[in-house]
Amino acid sequence: MRILAMDTSNQSMSVAIIENNQILVEKTTNVKRNHSIQLMPTIEHVIEDANLSIDSLDRIVVAKGPGSYTGVRIAVTVAKTLAWTKEIELVGISSLKVIAGNAQQIEGSLIVPVMDARRGNIYTGLYTYKNQELIELERDRHVSAKEWAQELASKHKIVQMIGTDLEKHLSIFKPYLKENLLLLPSYQQLPRASVLAMLGAQEEPTDIHTFVPEYAKLTEAEENWKEANPNDLGGRLIEKY
Amino acid sequence: MRILAMDTSNQSMSVAIIENNQILVEKTTNVKRNHSIQLMPTIEHVIEDANLSIDSLDRIVVAKGPGSYTGVRIAVTVAKTLAWTKEIELVGISSLKVIAGNAQQIEGSLIVPVMDARRGNIYTGLYTYKNQELIELERDRHVSAKEWAQELASKHKIVQMIGTDLEKHLSIFKPYLKENLLLLPSYQQLPRASVLAMLGAQEEPTDIHTFVPEYAKLTEAEENWKEANPNDLGGRLIEKY
Repeated sequence: MRILAMDTSNQSMSVAIIENNQILVEKTTNVKRNHSIQLMPTIEHVIEDANLSIDSLDRIVVAKGPGSYTGVRIAVTVAKTLAWTKEIELVGISSLKVIAGNAQQIEGSLIVPVMDARRGNIYTGLYTYKNQELIELERDRHVSAKEWAQELASKHKIVQMIGTDLEKHLSIFKPYLKENLLLLPSYQQLPRASVLAMLGAQEEPTDIHTFVPEYAKLTEAEENWKEANPNDLGGRLIEKY
Repeated sequence: MRILAMDTSNQSMSVAIIENNQILVEKTTNVKRNHSIQLMPTIEHVIEDANLSIDSLDRIVVAKGPGSYTGVRIAVTVAKTLAWTKEIELVGISSLKVIAGNAQQIEGSLIVPVMDARRGNIYTGLYTYKNQELIELERDRHVSAKEWAQELASKHKIVQMIGTDLEKHLSIFKPYLKENLLLLPSYQQLPRASVLAMLGAQEEPTDIHTFVPEYAKLTEAEENWKEANPNDLGGRLIEKY
């Protein structure tokens, strides 16, 4: 199976092609650039470097959030458009799970990917390896770093924390987790599209049209609406995507 | 410190730029292509994607072998030429150490990178993590897979084996290492120039002119010469590079 995978959830952008679980090409950049301009040419180059054409792809895997609202939407839009027009299978994978996929397979340890969500908050999740498979233990969430540190400490397990944004919040986690905190080398922090592709190879394809990002948090506009209309139970008024 | 790193020791080609231990750009391909044609344009693109110029680089790090004779020479030649003409520091790192750098930091475990060397032989080495630093325990070598399997088994330790060529030799190692053998996910097998760059950041720069690849084995021509001239003790007759 040939898979094209893309992740633009945050500052970094990663695009990869794998074939039967072997990486053919992977390109990752981590510089402040405009993903909306860079993503399509990068996809084109990566496909070309793999000596393939877009029609020879069997599946597209995209990081579906959480992360930067704009960032997440760019890859999701491109992935949906390609999948729809070229009739290729589509799979969405949590952007946090992609980061968790860089962790070490230490049996029984907790894997905690971290993305900054401003104002002392983070996007995070709880993963572990079971029989060499990366599984989600708890749903991805938007939470204050301090609250999450307390919750992790209460589990009394080795915690591998990971992510380029982790540094900003490390002083919160260290006193809670102490010697249970395991940090990874800096070259294992960036989300990699090859990991995304491998994770996506194991999932069932999704319905392309109804596929939407998962932000793990309401947008500010939605929060404001909710506050202004506390008795509105009509659910989502606006189709999110 | 801004580092450009390149590895073309085998089928894969990886080029990366890191700045102060953060990855800016990394591109890795693993398709049969001509590295001698692809390497320079890839370096150019990677520098451009990082919004840098070649003159702003502080150091070039190259995988210096062992590996494919032709492959190793391509990156070494390009790295030497760039370092010499642009007066940039040069560091050479074992191609096997680059692969070992993908391993998990399990304290006390042995890390064994493997490259195929044909006819049942491999290039391999013995590494471990000590205080989060990857260190060489024994010199890289050219050895028969079977002999190496016996030697590793005699150490009675967890052995992380790693490398895209490992599959070819796995049936040799499995019966010797049994439950001490630890395999890594397929996306951690490829040598990555970002790892190479980080390893090279910690070393002292080398003398550019006298820098040569390390093949861990004589070339076939040299072996034939030695066989035909068993009493010749004159050492290397031909300057290798």
